[in-house]
Amino acid sequence: MEVWKRKFNSMNRQKLIFQIKQKQSFLCVGLDTDIKKIPVHLLALEDPVFEFNKLIIDATKEFCVAYKPNIAFYESRGLSGWTSLQKTLDYIPKDIFTIADAKRGDIGNTSSMYAKAFFKNMNFDAVTVAPYMGKDSVTPFLEFEDKWAIVLALTSNKGGLDFQTFKNENGKQLFEQVLETSQTWGTDENMMYVVGATRAEQLSEIRSIIPNHFLLVPGVGEQGGNMQDVAKYGMNSDCGLLVNSSRGIIYAGNDVDFAAKAGNEAQKLQQEMAILLSAKGI
Amino acid sequence: MEVWKRKFNSMNRQKLIFQIKQKQSFLCVGLDTDIKKIPVHLLALEDPVFEFNKLIIDATKEFCVAYKPNIAFYESRGLSGWTSLQKTLDYIPKDIFTIADAKRGDIGNTSSMYAKAFFKNMNFDAVTVAPYMGKDSVTPFLEFEDKWAIVLALTSNKGGLDFQTFKNENGKQLFEQVLETSQTWGTDENMMYVVGATRAEQLSEIRSIIPNHFLLVPGVGEQGGNMQDVAKYGMNSDCGLLVNSSRGIIYAGNDVDFAAKAGNEAQKLQQEMAILLSAKGI
Repeated sequence: MEVWKRKFNSMNRQKLIFQIKQKQSFLCVGLDTDIKKIPVHLLALEDPVFEFNKLIIDATKEFCVAYKPNIAFYESRGLSGWTSLQKTLDYIPKDIFTIADAKRGDIGNTSSMYAKAFFKNMNFDAVTVAPYMGKDSVTPFLEFEDKWAIVLALTSNKGGLDFQTFKNENGKQLFEQVLETSQTWGTDENMMYVVGATRAEQLSEIRSIIPNHFLLVPGVGEQGGNMQDVAKYGMNSDCGLLVNSSRGIIYAGNDVDFAAKAGNEAQKLQQEMAILLSAKGI
Repeated sequence: MEVWKRKFNSMNRQKLIFQIKQKQSFLCVGLDTDIKKIPVHLLALEDPVFEFNKLIIDATKEFCVAYKPNIAFYESRGLSGWTSLQKTLDYIPKDIFTIADAKRGDIGNTSSMYAKAFFKNMNFDAVTVAPYMGKDSVTPFLEFEDKWAIVLALTSNKGGLDFQTFKNENGKQLFEQVLETSQTWGTDENMMYVVGATRAEQLSEIRSIIPNHFLLVPGVGEQGGNMQDVAKYGMNSDCGLLVNSSRGIIYAGNDVDFAAKAGNEAQKLQQEMAILLSAKGI
């Protein structure tokens, strides 16, 4: 196993699916680590944010296949935040998929700089990207081998309905147009889509446009999304889902046993996922 | 003048208009500083990116009313990039408007973190924001006194036409819907919009939706936009424009005289702007 792990320098689709089957999990743990919310006993340490993440990773890594640091939480702490982020990323086992939840996207030469920041400097496997600026804002993220752009389609927040459901004369909604158009820019080997768990009822429709792509699904737990529905309407024969939980796991406890509690929550979700995978024969 | 400058800690609309009239300029200088493009003689210095920006600022500050660091160019250089950015921001005279061209935007609690990063930690006056995720992704940027969210409407890049011109059954385009809806979230005292100079023909239409808001207009120069047209269709009685030029100014030269050449280019644009302002009686 160790030899195999060391060869595991990047995460292509095949390896991701292997991990999902192996662990019977499609859980992504969101590292939205807020220094104001971490247990007090960690605050005396030199880098409380990293120490918190380290213990969360130790407690959850056997139950999840991905970690998703929310970049704003690190960026808002300046240089020390970026340092905590890099240390966290380096600490995540190499066989676990890593997502920079950064929502970047700009004109071509600028998106290339963001891609360099997250893929080359920090060595993330994937970055979330906003599609508003179109093709040349997304394609620079597709030019790195075994790296992924995860494009926003239908997000879980209330404001997700302000523009994403804007309809054309044929009743096609903006997020459907985003799916249709953007899937021609890359493949299901280097693109995924964000679809909020709070929009589970739309997943069949979404699967009719992109049957094969992986979906990153936030909004289970705190935001009210239901995992049964997500699996029912969104799972494909390769699973095709990464369901994220952030606050529900990392802030399950707030005392010396916070990591154990986080591990329990992650395990609960993993067990639920194992049943859903098994029902699908995966 | 010095006393007045020291009192000038933030940049509201009134102060911005005062600067535009005073300098007879609505020029924004884009600091897209790429270490691969800066003159070789600076590379031996401890912080070449900051030294470059410092000399560009010295040479252009009397001709412009705003600076717009393109955050990707700093973020892609990791901690040293963020350090260069903060030093650059601290060096910009306090009576000049500062824009973090960051294209951020995420669910509410996350956008709050980005707003904190740029407004509180770094003390920028404004941040560019992508509207795809709707109201709760933008409003956290509107909660700081005398700070601004600059929302993407119609961008200058080719991909800007992929989704921004998506039309509903009444022929209304997405960017028009973004303007209509989002203007209710704030005021013309804390929101501006990005409209590319390459879309100047659309500016009259845009002005019919948002007559008073300032527009940040990139794309003059390198990207082919025409300043005469931008002023003709986009200028209002308060000017209402910040026209950005990045590469055309900062890379006008590539030798020891690069800053002088940048100053000349900025001055040329300022002189063109003075004529346009004067024609409008501003």
